[in-house]
Amino acid sequence: MSAYSQLTEIFMNLNNIRHAITFLQWDQLVMMPPGGNDNRSKAIAELTATHHERLTSSQVPELIQEAREQPQDKEKRTSLLEMERTYKQAACLPSDLVKRKSLAGSHCEHCWRSQRKENDWTSFLKNFEEVVQLSREEAHARQESSPAPVQTPYDAMLDLYCTGDSSERIQAIFDVLKSELPELIQQISSHQGPKYDGLNGPFSIKQQKKLNQRLMQSMGFDFQKGRLDVSAHPFSTGDKGDQRITTRFSNNDFLEALLATAHETGHASYESGLPKKWQGLPIGTARNMCIHESQSLLFEKHLFLSQPFFSFFINEIHSHFPQTSNLTPVQLWSICSYVEPSLIRVEADEATYPMHVILRFEIERDLINSKIEAKDIPELWNEKMMTYLGIHTKGNYRNGCLQDIHWTDGSFGYFPSYTMGALNSAQLFAAFTEEHPDWHDMFANGHINRLREWLQKKVWSKASSMESQEIIVHATGKETNASCFLQHLRSRYLQ
Amino acid sequence: MSAYSQLTEIFMNLNNIRHAITFLQWDQLVMMPPGGNDNRSKAIAELTATHHERLTSSQVPELIQEAREQPQDKEKRTSLLEMERTYKQAACLPSDLVKRKSLAGSHCEHCWRSQRKENDWTSFLKNFEEVVQLSREEAHARQESSPAPVQTPYDAMLDLYCTGDSSERIQAIFDVLKSELPELIQQISSHQGPKYDGLNGPFSIKQQKKLNQRLMQSMGFDFQKGRLDVSAHPFSTGDKGDQRITTRFSNNDFLEALLATAHETGHASYESGLPKKWQGLPIGTARNMCIHESQSLLFEKHLFLSQPFFSFFINEIHSHFPQTSNLTPVQLWSICSYVEPSLIRVEADEATYPMHVILRFEIERDLINSKIEAKDIPELWNEKMMTYLGIHTKGNYRNGCLQDIHWTDGSFGYFPSYTMGALNSAQLFAAFTEEHPDWHDMFANGHINRLREWLQKKVWSKASSMESQEIIVHATGKETNASCFLQHLRSRYLQ
Repeated sequence: MSAYSQLTEIFMNLNNIRHAITFLQWDQLVMMPPGGNDNRSKAIAELTATHHERLTSSQVPELIQEAREQPQDKEKRTSLLEMERTYKQAACLPSDLVKRKSLAGSHCEHCWRSQRKENDWTSFLKNFEEVVQLSREEAHARQESSPAPVQTPYDAMLDLYCTGDSSERIQAIFDVLKSELPELIQQISSHQGPKYDGLNGPFSIKQQKKLNQRLMQSMGFDFQKGRLDVSAHPFSTGDKGDQRITTRFSNNDFLEALLATAHETGHASYESGLPKKWQGLPIGTARNMCIHESQSLLFEKHLFLSQPFFSFFINEIHSHFPQTSNLTPVQLWSICSYVEPSLIRVEADEATYPMHVILRFEIERDLINSKIEAKDIPELWNEKMMTYLGIHTKGNYRNGCLQDIHWTDGSFGYFPSYTMGALNSAQLFAAFTEEHPDWHDMFANGHINRLREWLQKKVWSKASSMESQEIIVHATGKETNASCFLQHLRSRYLQ
Repeated sequence: MSAYSQLTEIFMNLNNIRHAITFLQWDQLVMMPPGGNDNRSKAIAELTATHHERLTSSQVPELIQEAREQPQDKEKRTSLLEMERTYKQAACLPSDLVKRKSLAGSHCEHCWRSQRKENDWTSFLKNFEEVVQLSREEAHARQESSPAPVQTPYDAMLDLYCTGDSSERIQAIFDVLKSELPELIQQISSHQGPKYDGLNGPFSIKQQKKLNQRLMQSMGFDFQKGRLDVSAHPFSTGDKGDQRITTRFSNNDFLEALLATAHETGHASYESGLPKKWQGLPIGTARNMCIHESQSLLFEKHLFLSQPFFSFFINEIHSHFPQTSNLTPVQLWSICSYVEPSLIRVEADEATYPMHVILRFEIERDLINSKIEAKDIPELWNEKMMTYLGIHTKGNYRNGCLQDIHWTDGSFGYFPSYTMGALNSAQLFAAFTEEHPDWHDMFANGHINRLREWLQKKVWSKASSMESQEIIVHATGKETNASCFLQHLRSRYLQ
């Protein structure tokens, strides 16, 4: 068997372990009773260790080396590069560091859950400083072992989520948003109509579930290959042929769940559209979080909240909840899309959201690159919230720098993908509508197949066979930039 | 680290893999959409192979040997014996045979699903002959490698399910049933009142689910440590702290689900009562299927269908389904317990059920011991059904020898555990009631804690630290025999 075939077999087997971990985690969040937690955690830890052990065995780099010395076609060369990236990302850290960070991260995250409620920054800081220290060690180790040169330690962390995009590139793009968005937000605020607040619940959860399933079907989700369930925080996971998405239902507001469902359906559609021929191989996985988030935001902001699709779907809303039959698309739409600076990132509208992300990006970059210390965060947070969104957060840690889970376990480098994803989604959608001038009619009749086919061709089928910027350039003609996103906001909120 | 401690660690790790397989299989039967099947099967196969590989690594028997040469207390000696039994059961088969049998079994089972519907014995036989041949090879290999002498190849298969009980012992016990039951069944038939058939559905599934959960609670099931779901065939599975049971609901008959739920709650109670101190070790697992089935049948036939508990629980039935409020306990009870010879084992009442099992036991024993051939089965089936239950099955393969799944994949040796379990349950319940003369009052008030405590002490806490006959003797004063069961039938149906 050739070295490449042997590698294929190893990665397919690794994918089986990954499959097991994926669904055990899904079960843990969606189905498992509290009593199962101990043994579940042990089982997941065991499989994670097994996965790591097999991925980082000396055989893997040896086979990669051997395969590289043999003649390979372009696809296999790319596949080998992605195998190497996967191997290096797993193998570059001393196992002692992995263990210490995992322990410190779990501890910090666990304590954060109550510290956030109690607005207790001081206690949080004690745990968090260790997480930062270990994350810096991790970043240095990743930087040193990177096959391609990496400018800063933070860039090495970024490579886990925004693979291929440097902090320099991201900063340049974010600078445009920083200079344009604050004024735009003000314009939108004074231009937009009133926010409608006449949703009269309760809205039966059973009906909401049916309505959400209807939405997923309208968006092309195949229930022979996936499920919708409920969890504390909506998420999407799964494996080829079995996409599991979750949402959460509120008795008094059925729109929240619909938005989450539209978003997760985007993630799931991307995953289900990855090519079968590369299944289980690194080349066959989703490119990175910047592309993943572009798909979820495209489904949520550009498809679901587009005027024609929303008008089409409102018939389903009216038929599932007859008490809404007097509400117009504009009224319902205003509830989902009201622009207003606010404290909490996850509740932010699409215009103010990037400012939340930029703030976090700048802080975490400087933190990992040792330009600032963990103790400096609250002051920086307050300063930036004032500058970017005109909001005071002094002393309000709970809804300030303690609001997110990401940093608590050391997931530095994740935040930028939310806004890079938003820009990519606007850029992709603009390219799609340019190629399909009749998109308005299509969506108004609930026909979104052409959109799915376009995404399949331009994004999903590429998986990790191209770098993310290659995918975006190939699909839209330009690298990721802010202009389509800003144009989208202007045309949506100022016309 | 001592050899024993090393073994403990190995078996704890194996248990983590087992945990993963368990919940992936549960998900496959309860949650998974059809599209997930390919990757799920691969993942389960991968984990099964990993489990087998680790369990049968040369390190395991070496450590067992080493540990045995060191001084150990009685508990550890027993634990070592069970480790060895587990090791040997896994290691004694050539991997080529395991693979061939697994393939032939899957194929035969898969084809059987349609062949049964089509009453097509001839086509089934072609596949089945290979399964029999490979099962005979398996039985021989198991017999040869057994640490204790095993009389026949079939006895070696029996050891997987009825661990510790020989075919000779089982035949001796079954002979008593064969001589007593046919006449008893006739007596019951002429003595029992009419079967009530006035259940007026439909019975809402949502209400049925609540009612079943209520039943589980009444029986001591802790929903912090388990779930109730729906599947095509009711089953029970899980791990410490997370027992998953399933039932199935029929629109027109709510009793079916209740009986299945009571049964599975018995299985789950046994599993959840296994001692925490031995968790993950072979000594800590359920003893065998004869004991397991005794717990499920005790909950179903002796607790749920006991006159006092049934009368207590009928209030719940009435309050969940007001349309049943005119039905008396006797009427409802007669639906669950009507005695009548019939074609299908799984639908048989408790008096005729053993005859179905004895027939299968005698056939599979002679088949594995090469006294008969697969092609002889239909004729033998017809003969024995006539003799034991007075029912013709000639030409009716569908509801005759093609009705069960067990043989299709070569699970020979399983059937006797159903009836051994029934005898054990009657014997255990008789011992409990003798020690608790006030059981009638307790159950009539829905108090079943004393029963759970008794089972905990006598059965659950023993796990695999004693042989099954030791457990039964310790709890009831006698080895498994037919008398309590026959006495139970007489007092339930003839008084």
